[in-house]
Amino acid sequence: MKISDIGEHKLLQLIYKYCPKDAVGDDAAILNPIPDCSLVVTTDVLVDKVHFSKMTTSPFDVGWRGVAANLSDIAAMGASPLGITVGLGLPGDVDISWVDDLYQGMTACLQAYNTPIVGGDLVRSSVIFLAITAFGQVCPTRIIRRNCARVGDAIIVTGQHGASRGGLELLLNPEIGSCISYNDQQVLINSHLRPKPRLDVIEHLWEVLNSESLLSVAGMDSSDGLADTIQQICHQSGVGAVIEIDNITFPPVFHQWLSKDKIWEYVFYGGEDFQLVLCMAPKAAQKLVQKLNKNAAIIGVITEGSKIILQDIQFPEKYPDLVISRDRGFQHFAN
Amino acid sequence: MKISDIGEHKLLQLIYKYCPKDAVGDDAAILNPIPDCSLVVTTDVLVDKVHFSKMTTSPFDVGWRGVAANLSDIAAMGASPLGITVGLGLPGDVDISWVDDLYQGMTACLQAYNTPIVGGDLVRSSVIFLAITAFGQVCPTRIIRRNCARVGDAIIVTGQHGASRGGLELLLNPEIGSCISYNDQQVLINSHLRPKPRLDVIEHLWEVLNSESLLSVAGMDSSDGLADTIQQICHQSGVGAVIEIDNITFPPVFHQWLSKDKIWEYVFYGGEDFQLVLCMAPKAAQKLVQKLNKNAAIIGVITEGSKIILQDIQFPEKYPDLVISRDRGFQHFAN
Repeated sequence: MKISDIGEHKLLQLIYKYCPKDAVGDDAAILNPIPDCSLVVTTDVLVDKVHFSKMTTSPFDVGWRGVAANLSDIAAMGASPLGITVGLGLPGDVDISWVDDLYQGMTACLQAYNTPIVGGDLVRSSVIFLAITAFGQVCPTRIIRRNCARVGDAIIVTGQHGASRGGLELLLNPEIGSCISYNDQQVLINSHLRPKPRLDVIEHLWEVLNSESLLSVAGMDSSDGLADTIQQICHQSGVGAVIEIDNITFPPVFHQWLSKDKIWEYVFYGGEDFQLVLCMAPKAAQKLVQKLNKNAAIIGVITEGSKIILQDIQFPEKYPDLVISRDRGFQHFAN
Repeated sequence: MKISDIGEHKLLQLIYKYCPKDAVGDDAAILNPIPDCSLVVTTDVLVDKVHFSKMTTSPFDVGWRGVAANLSDIAAMGASPLGITVGLGLPGDVDISWVDDLYQGMTACLQAYNTPIVGGDLVRSSVIFLAITAFGQVCPTRIIRRNCARVGDAIIVTGQHGASRGGLELLLNPEIGSCISYNDQQVLINSHLRPKPRLDVIEHLWEVLNSESLLSVAGMDSSDGLADTIQQICHQSGVGAVIEIDNITFPPVFHQWLSKDKIWEYVFYGGEDFQLVLCMAPKAAQKLVQKLNKNAAIIGVITEGSKIILQDIQFPEKYPDLVISRDRGFQHFAN
């Protein structure tokens, strides 16, 4: 059955299933943050045929990814999520089940973090789009900013990088995965379709900061790629960095699947891994890595100047003072 | 010059002009509400060729209307605005000046209420769309809800109704306005293109409630039409109403321009006047009407039951117990 068969009221009833009862039915939703918290707000928009394809991406995965991208930004500010609103544009010929599955994907990702859908708007459109705004709360002294990395800070990276890009490649060209196991393929594809925002890191981070009496942490999420993330932090903080690329973690299966150059391309420029890059005093950094059960690594150090130098101890002659370039970033409107 | 000529970074720089410096440049924006306030959140999406036409509506007006619709929802909850985020979908062939004018329209409407654009997302799309999310704050005992109108409450309506619908008609068919003055035409068109959210009413309302020691007010904004608004409040509160249609204010020029039936059609079903409909004890209602300098009127009373009866004292035989019908509402996905 299509959306145009049931009209707006019935479609809204379907969507209300996924919202807390007290959130819907008025001009706006009400949330009650903890007193004295700052409010964190972020917006992310996905458009059919630009950020996903209705033909090849399941609505469940579109919903999950849309939510994950927003919650990752909340985590990247050091905040806890309070709720999201959903602006949804739909052509009349979209199946009702597609919309239902979209909301199932959004709530599946939200449930892990007890975060409700508190409002939204449903509109007719010639193209499907999903505009999510997420709200979170954070103690004002605990905000993670991009512009406060200091010389001598250790640079921590959580999780693995390049996995999402590898998964995307397997979705686009399934035949190139024939040399790696089905299980390895699924793990990579899942990294791309169902990224997990690293809100779990934040509580460990505060424990470490409390024990070290540290006042601030610099950082952001790596959604636009690890290279861009390190660039942004250094640029906004007015510092440089030395990165030991041997300390950066990527899926072990890359060794049997990709050339070394391709591995670094995926790791640095792949994007959408939604991990966190955090800069703090070395002692605190070591404690955090331990707390995260080695699901994080110190990959370098913040330096004076503005250069970001990549060092490879194993192959010093192959990557001699390679500098991360800025102009490889994806531009939405480039010709 | 087109968007595709300059790329995303330069377009973002253009947009950053319209945002406070400390709001942009990180994963999310930070806002600091007054302690112990509840957070109010609302979203509204406009799509080209559905809610406006890029061909006939200026980008300034699209921006103004998008902001006004959201701030009206904030006012309708009794809240003060804190900020908005803007999700913007753009085809590459849109003129840069169109985007600049859009932001000028948004900020022009926001400036009257000291409300900043604190974040957003800019994406490529085959159709222009504008997804605005607005945040406000309200003392928890001051929230205006739809579901708490009580039998005996007076029903206040602010401003005039039908003006926006009249303005739309003049935009669609300019020739039909030949019998009214140019000035009257412009006032109606302006009501449609530049509606003003009634945040100004809220402070007067609290003064009255404080002086009357009233604990709650029911209400909402009339963006979906006056008939739908009264319906919603009555339905959600489990009450009925008697409306004296002679007390409802509409633009005086309607008398020389429209038939009586047409007048009531515009007034009750036109929509987008973005006025407030508020229900409270009669004494408080009278005080509020006085404070608003008669830019508001008591149009009826909340009754037991569920019927909404329209009375016309001047023409009792023409509108004998006319009941507002629910099925005239606009449905976005109707065939």
